[in-house]
Amino acid sequence: MLSEVLLVSAPGKVILHGEHAVVHGKAALAVALNLRTFLRLQPRSNGKVSLNLPNTGIKQAWDVARLQLLDTSFLDKYREEKPEQGDIPAPTAEQVEKLKEVAGFPVDCATTEHLAVLAFLYLYLSICRKQRWTGEDLELINRWAFQGERVIHGNPSGVDNAVSTWGGALRYQQGKISPLKRPPPLKILLTNTKVPRSTKALVAGVRSRLTKFPEIVAPLLTSIDAISVECERVLGEMATDPVPEQYLVLEELIDMNQHHLNALGVGHASLDRLCQVTTARGLHSKLTGAGGGGCGITLLKPDLERLEVEATKQALTDCGFDCWETNIGAPGVSTHSAASLDTHVQQALDGL
Amino acid sequence: MLSEVLLVSAPGKVILHGEHAVVHGKAALAVALNLRTFLRLQPRSNGKVSLNLPNTGIKQAWDVARLQLLDTSFLDKYREEKPEQGDIPAPTAEQVEKLKEVAGFPVDCATTEHLAVLAFLYLYLSICRKQRWTGEDLELINRWAFQGERVIHGNPSGVDNAVSTWGGALRYQQGKISPLKRPPPLKILLTNTKVPRSTKALVAGVRSRLTKFPEIVAPLLTSIDAISVECERVLGEMATDPVPEQYLVLEELIDMNQHHLNALGVGHASLDRLCQVTTARGLHSKLTGAGGGGCGITLLKPDLERLEVEATKQALTDCGFDCWETNIGAPGVSTHSAASLDTHVQQALDGL
Repeated sequence: MLSEVLLVSAPGKVILHGEHAVVHGKAALAVALNLRTFLRLQPRSNGKVSLNLPNTGIKQAWDVARLQLLDTSFLDKYREEKPEQGDIPAPTAEQVEKLKEVAGFPVDCATTEHLAVLAFLYLYLSICRKQRWTGEDLELINRWAFQGERVIHGNPSGVDNAVSTWGGALRYQQGKISPLKRPPPLKILLTNTKVPRSTKALVAGVRSRLTKFPEIVAPLLTSIDAISVECERVLGEMATDPVPEQYLVLEELIDMNQHHLNALGVGHASLDRLCQVTTARGLHSKLTGAGGGGCGITLLKPDLERLEVEATKQALTDCGFDCWETNIGAPGVSTHSAASLDTHVQQALDGL
Repeated sequence: MLSEVLLVSAPGKVILHGEHAVVHGKAALAVALNLRTFLRLQPRSNGKVSLNLPNTGIKQAWDVARLQLLDTSFLDKYREEKPEQGDIPAPTAEQVEKLKEVAGFPVDCATTEHLAVLAFLYLYLSICRKQRWTGEDLELINRWAFQGERVIHGNPSGVDNAVSTWGGALRYQQGKISPLKRPPPLKILLTNTKVPRSTKALVAGVRSRLTKFPEIVAPLLTSIDAISVECERVLGEMATDPVPEQYLVLEELIDMNQHHLNALGVGHASLDRLCQVTTARGLHSKLTGAGGGGCGITLLKPDLERLEVEATKQALTDCGFDCWETNIGAPGVSTHSAASLDTHVQQALDGL
């Protein structure tokens, strides 16, 4: 039981370069954004565990006593099977099915809301069972976060939880994650086109294009890989010896990768529109993540006038997009004292 | 002296795939269009050589007697230097300078109109000197056409004159030109954005991007090369075993190459517009040639309704573009009897 309020936050992330190519063994660069998710853990005396996720519209509570009475022995399955590994167990498909029973969810539930609750319950029940939840080791947090990802995504790369845990910027390739040294805190716009897409279908589309035209698509993936490598090199240079020309290179890399992603077939008219709007203002954008809609990032050079940034955000909002100004290379999972929080974060938490 | 009227025509051409990549040793596919240039050679009794190029606004005449008196010995220079070669001499920079003197043009003249007249005078004077102008050998026509190209372009690849001489479709790679067997007469729209551009600057831009980012751009050129190869393969299949799916592949190749050309930096907002307009109608377009404006091609599937074609042409015309419906794989240089010509061609010639 917590004796006092615990406030923690973790950054959001975007893929800077390498989405899709990463599925085929190429490098990807993931960067932490200072758009953070805050978590307030607060002791209660009402005998309930309450989960309140305002952004996904979830407000649920369970009797602690009832949860303790539940048969959660199925959570030990993996551990029993591979006792020598000593690592955090991965949720199996059967465990997730059992969890749906426990939560009283229908078997075929797959909405964000259902999955978020399942991930919470899995982590809550597993961590409580193991009496480990006081640990502050980042490594441990990362491994548990990865299991949460597994509940939600099925087959996550591990890069999302890693960048949210450690912050900064990470290079990911073939399962190997390596942090970039001192990534510069580049200002960007993160724009959500709000066009829904299926990551699975987009990844499958790229795979099928690769199978259909191997001689055309394989060198394209090689080219995307080289963009990630070049971007990592430039970000490294910017940390030690920043010059304005580096921004021009970053812009060229963004443009080339956006065209490459279009050539892979993961573009979308909404993303074209995003690029068109920002190009008209001399700014450079690319989709980030799966494409086919979803989000795009726009690089903001440090000398860009405030009015120009505001006008761009307005132009994107006028397209029906959501737009946030943020920066990359944000700190990883962090604890906060209530007093140190931004007023708007405090207000949001107090309003819960 | 001709005893009667000689009517000849030669096709226009577009690059189907491989522009820019061809400069770096990759394959390109050039195809003849049935948009033809007609030439009427007509005997006159007024002692003048008259040149009338209505499309470029040129109408000039020279006294035959005066031309014969000109010191054109400079035209023999190359021949004297390399007598063993027996090939058609290439115009040297000095010869072109001398020719400007003969034509009374300023030294720095470089407009299309000036260059067209210089190319005509060079070919007229050279061919007359060699008494070869009655020859009907395609090889000879091609070689002379290449010299005309040299006057105008400086360093032509030879593919333009070759495809206009032989028609059909040609593969060009590292100076080697090979005709495609029976290319299918695909219907296309040829659209001129009317945005002027400098081929030289665009080619230099690609070279500089290749030098700056070799690891990114070299695989991109490899991918473009594979698109040309795949297109050639599909065109070959269409000749022997045509199925509707081949059009889908041609469309995918067009899309991928257009994105690749954008990634090389030779796109333009006008070409984006062209693609956007045709994409909205389910059609696929790419730039053709140097890019940065200029022309684009749009594939028209055989089952496309007439009304839909007309609506697309109208939509492109509404953008301020010129648009022609034509087909690829047209016949090469041809002689015609006046009676066999289309009414509109006859009328155009009669109006001169």
